[in-house]
Amino acid sequence: MLLRVIPLGTSAGRPTLLRGASALAVAAERGWVLCDCGEGAQLSAQRAGLSLSRLDAVLVTHLHGDHFNGLPGLLGTMSLDGRERPLLVAGPAGIGGLLEALARAGSLGVSFPLALVELSGEGGAVRWPDGLDSPFELRAGPLAHRVPTFGYRVALPDRPGHLDAEAAIAAGVPAGPLLRVLKEEGRITLEGGRVITSEGLVGPAQRGLSVAYTLDTVPCPGAVALGRGADLLVHEATYEHARAALARQRSHSTGVEAAQVAAEAGAGQLLLTHFSPSVDAEAVADEARAVHGRIIAAQDGVPVDLTRS
Amino acid sequence: MLLRVIPLGTSAGRPTLLRGASALAVAAERGWVLCDCGEGAQLSAQRAGLSLSRLDAVLVTHLHGDHFNGLPGLLGTMSLDGRERPLLVAGPAGIGGLLEALARAGSLGVSFPLALVELSGEGGAVRWPDGLDSPFELRAGPLAHRVPTFGYRVALPDRPGHLDAEAAIAAGVPAGPLLRVLKEEGRITLEGGRVITSEGLVGPAQRGLSVAYTLDTVPCPGAVALGRGADLLVHEATYEHARAALARQRSHSTGVEAAQVAAEAGAGQLLLTHFSPSVDAEAVADEARAVHGRIIAAQDGVPVDLTRS
Repeated sequence: MLLRVIPLGTSAGRPTLLRGASALAVAAERGWVLCDCGEGAQLSAQRAGLSLSRLDAVLVTHLHGDHFNGLPGLLGTMSLDGRERPLLVAGPAGIGGLLEALARAGSLGVSFPLALVELSGEGGAVRWPDGLDSPFELRAGPLAHRVPTFGYRVALPDRPGHLDAEAAIAAGVPAGPLLRVLKEEGRITLEGGRVITSEGLVGPAQRGLSVAYTLDTVPCPGAVALGRGADLLVHEATYEHARAALARQRSHSTGVEAAQVAAEAGAGQLLLTHFSPSVDAEAVADEARAVHGRIIAAQDGVPVDLTRS
Repeated sequence: MLLRVIPLGTSAGRPTLLRGASALAVAAERGWVLCDCGEGAQLSAQRAGLSLSRLDAVLVTHLHGDHFNGLPGLLGTMSLDGRERPLLVAGPAGIGGLLEALARAGSLGVSFPLALVELSGEGGAVRWPDGLDSPFELRAGPLAHRVPTFGYRVALPDRPGHLDAEAAIAAGVPAGPLLRVLKEEGRITLEGGRVITSEGLVGPAQRGLSVAYTLDTVPCPGAVALGRGADLLVHEATYEHARAALARQRSHSTGVEAAQVAAEAGAGQLLLTHFSPSVDAEAVADEARAVHGRIIAAQDGVPVDLTRS
């Protein structure tokens, strides 16, 4: 297992006794990031065995309460835990002011460095602050909802391809550390000035596993761009397709529309979430399977493991 | 059962998997009020079988996150439910501005009338808004914590004493509606001008059941005043008495101190809550029982029923 995706809250609009408000963990061996932080996410994370001390980032799609209301409590609990390590918090412009308003009212006390990234426009790469060593690469991109909303791409870095050490040595690379340089940088210059490139000696790079998280949104080019070639696209599916008009009116998607996005993006798997309490999630997934072959209806606490085949 | 008190969250500072963040319901047959609204209170209320449509008021003691963080989500869910009836929300000055900041950021949308009562100074009676018919009488009074904090008294109204109808008729009251007037108002004037008072005809008034809710606070006169003669005093007991100095430093109480408040107030029963995750709640209650005879350590979801003996 290289990446474990754990839906922590899969309900739309409000938490229910069966599905929490929006939250999803993407976990690697060394750390994890939280996508959205609906009410109760801190407890769902603990229930799933995730350690808050290993949380690297909270990526908030938009400021609607069912995606944000768990954040103040999560930050408070991590402060009580004595966290000192920085935490990255990304979200649409305005998230900083909202956290400040909570702090001014005495509602929020954060005792560790908060690296706030406020998104606008086209988003882009989200950079880690100094002192926060995380295994993930992050990117944000705009979605299409009633309010400014950003989806995220969470990926492990690409890894260099396999080095044929025997062939490299035969080609003149001295046994030793230069082999690694050749593998990682693609070329070396020997003492006499001769250049050896990795061509024919190092296999193709191994793309890092990636997850795209796209809610809340209507089907949109931004979701397709974030999901392009992702191993797993997490897309909202608030309604069954019979209510596509209602979904559009409320700036949401149906499961079928989510599958169309996944198919267009060439995503390996599709994880549907953000189900209206009024839908049957399995039925939403079933009708979407006509469009994309590998679809899972998210359930709170049931992980999806990603490995490189 | 005339009043049912249901602890919905009994942990201090943060929710845990065993105890939610601060919240407690006081329920009568026709409606209920919520004292504090920590994260997760809306789900704990549903789990306890309480209907959000019958919620009359949310009484927030102070704005620390573990007493407030569940409020935006609760209001959001009631809006999605289509509530139209007003809701009373009381809390220390600043609670209105905080809710406005959440609304401005798009995080909170409330679709029903919110009757906000911002408390300062000595508190006092909390009046119901027009259109909100509730069985309770409410009073707020100041506590002593690190930030402005108010406790509450939630009571059913006093009921007139028993009318000895036979004796009243013998004394000249015409059989019929005047008997009820005599009972409820204590005197009637007959057609000829003669006044009959209830003395000797109507027994002593039956005091309405009452609950005082006093957290977070050090032991203080305000808590004693709110708890005076209450059927149940709900008082915080963050630490065991061996850590009284720490409790004082953090503006909290020990169970023993809570029992001293209950004894001084002459409260019938004491319900201890707001336990630090580091204490054994039953042990905190045990050592307090040397000071007050009727003490319960609150457990999430376990109700305490009050009846008039």
